[in-house]
Amino acid sequence: MAKESYLVGLIGSGIGPSFSPALHEREADRQGLRLVYRLIDIDVLGLPPEAVGDLLRSARDLGFDGLNITHPCKQLVLEHLDDLAPQAAALGAVNTVVFEGGRAIGHNTDVTGFAASFARGLPDAPLERVVQLGAGGAGAAVAHALLTLGAERVTVVDPLPERAAALADSLDAHFGAGRAAAAAPTASADLLSRADGLVHATPTGMAAHPGMPLPADLLHPGLWVAEVVYRPLETELLRTARAAGCDTLDGGGMAAFQAADAFRLFTGREPDSARMLADIAHIAGTADATDADAIAARQ
Amino acid sequence: MAKESYLVGLIGSGIGPSFSPALHEREADRQGLRLVYRLIDIDVLGLPPEAVGDLLRSARDLGFDGLNITHPCKQLVLEHLDDLAPQAAALGAVNTVVFEGGRAIGHNTDVTGFAASFARGLPDAPLERVVQLGAGGAGAAVAHALLTLGAERVTVVDPLPERAAALADSLDAHFGAGRAAAAAPTASADLLSRADGLVHATPTGMAAHPGMPLPADLLHPGLWVAEVVYRPLETELLRTARAAGCDTLDGGGMAAFQAADAFRLFTGREPDSARMLADIAHIAGTADATDADAIAARQ
Repeated sequence: MAKESYLVGLIGSGIGPSFSPALHEREADRQGLRLVYRLIDIDVLGLPPEAVGDLLRSARDLGFDGLNITHPCKQLVLEHLDDLAPQAAALGAVNTVVFEGGRAIGHNTDVTGFAASFARGLPDAPLERVVQLGAGGAGAAVAHALLTLGAERVTVVDPLPERAAALADSLDAHFGAGRAAAAAPTASADLLSRADGLVHATPTGMAAHPGMPLPADLLHPGLWVAEVVYRPLETELLRTARAAGCDTLDGGGMAAFQAADAFRLFTGREPDSARMLADIAHIAGTADATDADAIAARQ
Repeated sequence: MAKESYLVGLIGSGIGPSFSPALHEREADRQGLRLVYRLIDIDVLGLPPEAVGDLLRSARDLGFDGLNITHPCKQLVLEHLDDLAPQAAALGAVNTVVFEGGRAIGHNTDVTGFAASFARGLPDAPLERVVQLGAGGAGAAVAHALLTLGAERVTVVDPLPERAAALADSLDAHFGAGRAAAAAPTASADLLSRADGLVHATPTGMAAHPGMPLPADLLHPGLWVAEVVYRPLETELLRTARAAGCDTLDGGGMAAFQAADAFRLFTGREPDSARMLADIAHIAGTADATDADAIAARQ
């Protein structure tokens, strides 16, 4: 009868198809915790991305224990926080806020989530030259993860040159000169022809932003392709990349492991990340229960 | 795995000791529903009672399914609602708001809650002349319940004469001329000397408002005393009344039955009100498990 209650949610745009409510609520159920996870979609509410500060304060006042934050608010939320975990401060992006004693503390579980997923899904992938599309909040996390995993050089491609340059400078400062570079989309063909792998970290391919983030003819056999988008799990990029002979990694693993890390921050309990990964496949409907169990067993 | 999620709460002042979170969450647990109930205390938040409108809109935006409303917001909330259930409209007070398709609908489960508790706890109480202290939101609900139960005449005593008169007029309009009257606190001694029963419907005796709502020497054997306050279950008024030889009814029954009716509105599921009544006694610590079971068995 003394079961604890947790109230958490996700603030972002076009998040209707998010798996996060099911991921967190199912894991809480398995642990015997009472947890409700709500979607707070600024599009549905007719609010601008800058409303994240007001939403954050309202959530704290109404008894939320924490929030996940996604596109387009991962950087806008920074100025509304009382403190940042060291990793979130280094990244300049927050995907998880925990309310502790009336204070809002920012964390980033995208980097650990991507690293865990990559190590599991593409364990033998060469990492000498990696091209990354997207220098936003998720992009910053993924680049940190790649360099932490041992990538020799990550080139960040973004349509906003100053955003790409700022991320590359920040990565160089953190990991050492020459580890990162910035480039414009016009350089993608040249960069990819000489790359080991491509990481996609923009919203393109999400339910709210369908399509391809780059021309299909830039994909070639021998290039691995890792996706950050997980709704849908099967993006047009991944489908096209597989057809072109690329090894691929979908965004489900990152989604599961970042959720597991957020769950630990929200509840103080240790999540079973293997079961959460199996849930992703199950929820996405790309695997039946047997497949989900097999995925879990592989962990 | 398809378990539904419900998010509800309570807006009011000094509600820290409220039993509502435990009442709703325990009943949801027994029904296999995932439900979180949050306390939104305007004192803790440093907000005025008029903030209830902003809190209501924020709660709707953040995914709440509904809210209970208590002192001092039960009447202030009216102007912020999109629609009122007929009973709430007749009462002019709302203790339950349900969000349906973005609209906020007001209900009042205090009247049914009090009626059920009174019928159970004081089944043979004479109802010719009843004195009621308090003409606020809970007071209006209790007076409606008393007249519905067959009280011949309810005299409403309130330090605000216009508030007492307005309630008496509204009751006369609804139940027939002469069924209700208004009086000032200075008339209490005379009224109580000729009354069958006293209903107390002010916040006095709550954790945030300790004390007696009237002089102890006005209580006399033969007078029954019914209390609306339920935190604590044992108010100074009830203790004094029992010592004076009065039959008494604590506020726990009304709390349990109003919660059961709100639970039905929030979730669409039929609550087990007998178990919720047992929970009240259990949570209050005034009964051990055996007593709680005995209370439930009496239902």
